[in-house]
Amino acid sequence: MTCELCDHAAGEMLWQDGECRVVLVDEPDYPGFCRVIWNAHIKEMSDLTPLQRKHLMSVVFAVEQAVRQTLAPDKINLASLGNVVPHLHWHIIPRYRDDRHFPNPIWSEAVRESRPRQSVGIAPALRAALEEALA
Amino acid sequence: MTCELCDHAAGEMLWQDGECRVVLVDEPDYPGFCRVIWNAHIKEMSDLTPLQRKHLMSVVFAVEQAVRQTLAPDKINLASLGNVVPHLHWHIIPRYRDDRHFPNPIWSEAVRESRPRQSVGIAPALRAALEEALA
Repeated sequence: MTCELCDHAAGEMLWQDGECRVVLVDEPDYPGFCRVIWNAHIKEMSDLTPLQRKHLMSVVFAVEQAVRQTLAPDKINLASLGNVVPHLHWHIIPRYRDDRHFPNPIWSEAVRESRPRQSVGIAPALRAALEEALA
Repeated sequence: MTCELCDHAAGEMLWQDGECRVVLVDEPDYPGFCRVIWNAHIKEMSDLTPLQRKHLMSVVFAVEQAVRQTLAPDKINLASLGNVVPHLHWHIIPRYRDDRHFPNPIWSEAVRESRPRQSVGIAPALRAALEEALA
């Protein structure tokens, strides 16, 4: 079986250790959208050991903190779905009152045109904030 | 300001302590859909203390384990969105290959008719599994 999260970084690398990685997703409507991807091909959070779960969530929450600090969104959305790719990964999505789907989830039908958002320089800013949050 | 998660249980109570509660959601397409609701009106995970975050996630993952044990879904979906009600709560959603939206998130457009699913007896079974998972 091939798995795109086993075979590819799946985004611009922001941070990594031996167990997981944080990537910036190329999603023009949602600059700053990050994913935390567990490196091993595991399906569910409850398939991890308690220590692994704790580590993964500490990275997810550090990304949330870095995204809030860097982009000051109106809301953070967190989700671990994995229906298409059953390889454990978390979405950390900065949301704004005037974004394409707000207040609905980004997977629902769009409710307005996308507004262009600043995306230049986000990766280095997130990298720095993430290093600090994980220190 | 009124907040429906401050003012109402918002589901059939399965478990609670002084900080959060687990409720069964009345969602005919998704029997076994649970929410973990933080009792205080807090917006984001990173607004909790590390200890509060740890506690909330331990309940979320216990619900995941109880739902898997009770219903054996094909996949678990976890999400904390809160765009409409910015009061911290987690969705724990059992997903099946033939459910109304699979493999898409449940907030996207339906891809097939809903198939009737057994929902009688789910609450007591989840309660028992949850007590065990949290013991």
